[in-house]
Amino acid sequence: MSGNTFGKLFTVTTFGESHGPALGAIVDGCPPGLPLTEADLQDDLNRRRPGTSRHTTQRREPDAVRILSGVFEGVTTGTPIGLLIENTDQRSKDYSAIKDRFRPAHADYTYHHKYGVRDYRGGGRSSARETAMRVAAGAIAKKYLATQGIVVRGYMSQLGPIAIDFKSWDGVNDNAFFCPDPDKVAELEAFMDQLRRDQDSVGARISVVAEGVPVGLGEPIFDRLDAELAHGLMSINAVKGVEIGDGFAAVTQRGSEHRDEMTPQGFQSNHAGGVLGGISSGQPLVAHLALKPTSSITQPGRSIDRHGNPVEVITKGRHDPCVGIRATPIAEAMMALTLIDHLLRHRAQNADVRVDTPRLT
Amino acid sequence: MSGNTFGKLFTVTTFGESHGPALGAIVDGCPPGLPLTEADLQDDLNRRRPGTSRHTTQRREPDAVRILSGVFEGVTTGTPIGLLIENTDQRSKDYSAIKDRFRPAHADYTYHHKYGVRDYRGGGRSSARETAMRVAAGAIAKKYLATQGIVVRGYMSQLGPIAIDFKSWDGVNDNAFFCPDPDKVAELEAFMDQLRRDQDSVGARISVVAEGVPVGLGEPIFDRLDAELAHGLMSINAVKGVEIGDGFAAVTQRGSEHRDEMTPQGFQSNHAGGVLGGISSGQPLVAHLALKPTSSITQPGRSIDRHGNPVEVITKGRHDPCVGIRATPIAEAMMALTLIDHLLRHRAQNADVRVDTPRLT
Amino acid sequence: MSGNTFGKLFTVTTFGESHGPALGAIVDGCPPGLPLTEADLQDDLNRRRPGTSRHTTQRREPDAVRILSGVFEGVTTGTPIGLLIENTDQRSKDYSAIKDRFRPAHADYTYHHKYGVRDYRGGGRSSARETAMRVAAGAIAKKYLATQGIVVRGYMSQLGPIAIDFKSWDGVNDNAFFCPDPDKVAELEAFMDQLRRDQDSVGARISVVAEGVPVGLGEPIFDRLDAELAHGLMSINAVKGVEIGDGFAAVTQRGSEHRDEMTPQGFQSNHAGGVLGGISSGQPLVAHLALKPTSSITQPGRSIDRHGNPVEVITKGRHDPCVGIRATPIAEAMMALTLIDHLLRHRAQNADVRVDTPRLT
Amino acid sequence: MSGNTFGKLFTVTTFGESHGPALGAIVDGCPPGLPLTEADLQDDLNRRRPGTSRHTTQRREPDAVRILSGVFEGVTTGTPIGLLIENTDQRSKDYSAIKDRFRPAHADYTYHHKYGVRDYRGGGRSSARETAMRVAAGAIAKKYLATQGIVVRGYMSQLGPIAIDFKSWDGVNDNAFFCPDPDKVAELEAFMDQLRRDQDSVGARISVVAEGVPVGLGEPIFDRLDAELAHGLMSINAVKGVEIGDGFAAVTQRGSEHRDEMTPQGFQSNHAGGVLGGISSGQPLVAHLALKPTSSITQPGRSIDRHGNPVEVITKGRHDPCVGIRATPIAEAMMALTLIDHLLRHRAQNADVRVDTPRLT
Repeated sequence: MSGNTFGKLFTVTTFGESHGPALGAIVDGCPPGLPLTEADLQDDLNRRRPGTSRHTTQRREPDAVRILSGVFEGVTTGTPIGLLIENTDQRSKDYSAIKDRFRPAHADYTYHHKYGVRDYRGGGRSSARETAMRVAAGAIAKKYLATQGIVVRGYMSQLGPIAIDFKSWDGVNDNAFFCPDPDKVAELEAFMDQLRRDQDSVGARISVVAEGVPVGLGEPIFDRLDAELAHGLMSINAVKGVEIGDGFAAVTQRGSEHRDEMTPQGFQSNHAGGVLGGISSGQPLVAHLALKPTSSITQPGRSIDRHGNPVEVITKGRHDPCVGIRATPIAEAMMALTLIDHLLRHRAQNADVRVDTPRLT
Repeated sequence: MSGNTFGKLFTVTTFGESHGPALGAIVDGCPPGLPLTEADLQDDLNRRRPGTSRHTTQRREPDAVRILSGVFEGVTTGTPIGLLIENTDQRSKDYSAIKDRFRPAHADYTYHHKYGVRDYRGGGRSSARETAMRVAAGAIAKKYLATQGIVVRGYMSQLGPIAIDFKSWDGVNDNAFFCPDPDKVAELEAFMDQLRRDQDSVGARISVVAEGVPVGLGEPIFDRLDAELAHGLMSINAVKGVEIGDGFAAVTQRGSEHRDEMTPQGFQSNHAGGVLGGISSGQPLVAHLALKPTSSITQPGRSIDRHGNPVEVITKGRHDPCVGIRATPIAEAMMALTLIDHLLRHRAQNADVRVDTPRLT
Repeated sequence: MSGNTFGKLFTVTTFGESHGPALGAIVDGCPPGLPLTEADLQDDLNRRRPGTSRHTTQRREPDAVRILSGVFEGVTTGTPIGLLIENTDQRSKDYSAIKDRFRPAHADYTYHHKYGVRDYRGGGRSSARETAMRVAAGAIAKKYLATQGIVVRGYMSQLGPIAIDFKSWDGVNDNAFFCPDPDKVAELEAFMDQLRRDQDSVGARISVVAEGVPVGLGEPIFDRLDAELAHGLMSINAVKGVEIGDGFAAVTQRGSEHRDEMTPQGFQSNHAGGVLGGISSGQPLVAHLALKPTSSITQPGRSIDRHGNPVEVITKGRHDPCVGIRATPIAEAMMALTLIDHLLRHRAQNADVRVDTPRLT
Repeated sequence: MSGNTFGKLFTVTTFGESHGPALGAIVDGCPPGLPLTEADLQDDLNRRRPGTSRHTTQRREPDAVRILSGVFEGVTTGTPIGLLIENTDQRSKDYSAIKDRFRPAHADYTYHHKYGVRDYRGGGRSSARETAMRVAAGAIAKKYLATQGIVVRGYMSQLGPIAIDFKSWDGVNDNAFFCPDPDKVAELEAFMDQLRRDQDSVGARISVVAEGVPVGLGEPIFDRLDAELAHGLMSINAVKGVEIGDGFAAVTQRGSEHRDEMTPQGFQSNHAGGVLGGISSGQPLVAHLALKPTSSITQPGRSIDRHGNPVEVITKGRHDPCVGIRATPIAEAMMALTLIDHLLRHRAQNADVRVDTPRLT
């Protein structure tokens, strides 16, 4: 209720501050009998982990995750899975410069007014460091979904002004940007190098796709699959927009163009992005998200302190010049968490349903 | 859990099919002592109601709402508010043409597979008729929010290819489109008239704004104000995209441009759309949504029947050529419902908080 | 969240005041494909209905229920089921005697302080009249459970000082008390007749049993089957105690006596009442509840008015001298609602589980 | 949803198995600004801790709790509080004797069928060891409640056949039984010594009282304060019955006796136990619970193994001969968690309520 839980049947509740002793999560509702090890989680954590290229923050966290419960003799038991990551790279730096002043476009000002007290070290709870636990929990969801034939993958589709066409999944994990077009990587690197020289940051667009989704997931009216997916994706730090399928392009489309016709051979297009009436259609589930440019830049910005006095803020420290670069695994995690939750919810109510109509894809 | 409830503390649960005997809702958690009459709800219902111009469906429903509980001697009592709208314009038409076939881009195919059985008359539960109860419930939320100085309003910002600049709230409710620029109305009407002649439909973009929102609403991490707003807006029929503040424009922005600087005189811009770190900043809360073109058009479309055979579907009946036209009151309702829920959630945890820092807007 | 919803996957949300225009409920999460008519609900409503014997209130309500949605062509569709009962016997009596004074042992005083405003006519929302909707919703749950081989039944096990041994289910519904021993009925009637002459009321003990419950229902740790059952039963008006299996008798038992031994032929006893570790064991689920004597009696009682002045209250009107008499169908409803919710929850997480161990009963 | 969370606004989610690496919990929704240290939690943990007298299990766990988040510079920040207790006394004993057989009256049989797989070491998740985290979380709730003038305390009111009258709170924490009558302690010790010689176990009755509860807490209809308290108390391992106020004694009471009259000087009795209509009355909140005798005794018992074969089970190891002895702090925790949740829920909806009627106690 206080906002730190995602999902209703497969739930993830997280805790932890950027510079506190540890991050943790409880994953509840995982089906029993799933083989699971810490290594299964570590793969995705490493994809999100900072410090692996010159284009992300140089903070170095191993993000080594421990499973503290819910797994016995290598398989899940159906009881809650406790996860823990110790924070190791908490530099004992001097925070007096930001303790009483609000960094522009950060959550400092709003946390201060909401709670009256805040952990100002590195943004505390509002830091994107929190997303590590989402990725760990998402890896569990992904592993279970894979047993059901569902694969969730993402890629960067735009970096600032550079649009990136999807070419292939093959090389996506082989570059720092999750770029699906190997020929574009050099251009992205050059852009980022110039951006750092400009002491500025930039936004990005990420795309996520789930393949193998069965028809029938999603709970109208309010808990439609697309609505809960939008919820999950918009809850990622810095996200300002979410599209399902054609998204905002649908504004200028005509009905004769947008509607996805069906033949016995399958759907003839996927403008809808895999959802009809809030329920998965069996086509690939497709979403796009917009991330704002990092707020932490070294150019001075105007702000106020906690007494209301004008101040100038320069954000030092180790920051990502484009938070979108590391966002792909997080977006995958939120899509996976949304899907597994709806898979379980669908089973609960509709276990008796038998239909002999062929299923299209 | 089955998807028909919105909100956690101020909850709305709806029921009803397009051609069933009635639509209804239960609004739970409304603060007691709020003056409330059926007329308060009827105003917004009339704004959403079809058949008031030639640009919307000619189905004629008075949408007269009854309050069945929770209000005594003119004020809310804190107990659940039961709402009921009888369906009166249920033409006893012949549905055999669509009973066993799936209209393209509709929820027919997905409902069929999810539930095994569906009320095929007029789309049943998947009809946009369901949104009448959202508007009724939203009117209660709006009335309470108004007592707290919060005003929620929306307008159409694009109709198909025609972008509409916001000029003024004054005339928004005086035209069929909720167009905020009186000089554009004639162009919109001409466009719609041509669209009907083309037997086609088109998408639209709606914008919603809440003014007077206090700083502090929203529950990080997962239940951020913007994430739950995205959830609510994406749950509206036909919505394919949601933006907060600058939305997808943030992809190409630089950090030095996007960040909203603060001075003792207030925020210097509102690229964020009134949310920082998932918590309201006190600036106007701004969201935009994309609606797809109506799927029901009279041009024949390819589809299959429930046995998997190819069929051709022509949607007859009374349909909106642009579902976006009547979406503004619905979007307002979802924003109002999101805000009141977060207002109550904030009070629950943070009643003790006292901060002497000045509040900016 | 505001308390008018029961269940998490099969949810019932109710509204309505004793003397308002109507009572209603939304039942969400019912599996699709269940044959259902209003007559299915009416049977249990008639069992709870007042005015059918001289031992209950003479208020006469037909309690005729309408199904407004969620059922199409005789079967449930998986969408929310709207239920409505119009209040017809709202005597336009004079309530000035109780408008500003708090009847002892009623909720008048607490509602007044909680909400600041209350519908004082007949107790408003706090009236046991609200339980009609529970019984209607419970009848849906019962019907579905029956398709799974689960039968929920209750009986009166004590009326004031008269303990009633369980003899047989046969005649339970053939007397006004749900007494399972036909030879006891005359004694109960004589007791009630004297009680009315004494102008007093008395408590009762009700027992509820579910047979055919599969092993495995219940969600440790906090949502154990017995804990949620206790929640449901304790939420019934006037209930002051709940026992599972041997209940308070277990305090004086020894472990060697209480533990239910197992052999290949089955459990050798059922002290546990069908639950082990919060999960159903496959044995009959057994619960008992204590109901307090009706607070509304014609003997004068001391109280205060809303200004804090001392007053004397005499409760006139039509009241049950023993609220326990009509409580059996309500208790059955709450047990059925608890069971169906856990049946769906179990399916959600554990659909994959296969065990070759024989199941005992 | 999977049962490991208690509360709706002040939530506690726990994880951990008896013999796994650690127990943990996330406490979400705690108001910010509350001074809190690990020592605040340790006091109650020590009261529950085993091995402090000869009358409880000799397993020795320091139960040293760490706060991993949500507290900064000594006060709560409003973000989730992560708690961790490492398991240190996990004897590497041989579990082959119980690995494939189901101990009578334990959860072995039901976990096996529900999940298909279980951590059999020491009962795994079903062990009462899990209650350590409830006590830790309850200590946070208690500390906040104390700032509101609410004090939650419990005592043993019966041990097997020995009823214990409440004499005074003074010495309750000075004996191993939480006995409120110092003169009874010797009798209790003698009884327990004989019980151990008998190689048997026994049940107990615990009473819990909250003083200083304001009028108005509780959410009718289903989430009444007494119903949610019953839920919480019944969720404690081994609890078989819950009473509010007079409980089952109300069955034989008459209305003229049970109803608590009010005068300007206050309530004249407290048969109700502090709740009217599901809402706190301002009187002390009183509950009683029945705990069954420990199932783990060294007398052989009949059971089956996972293949359905008959086996004889003798439970060795370190067990409490009366689980009720250590249950008092756990019961206090569940009452405190129920109260704080309802305190926050009440604030959410009823912040505007102003009533000038005097409040009684």
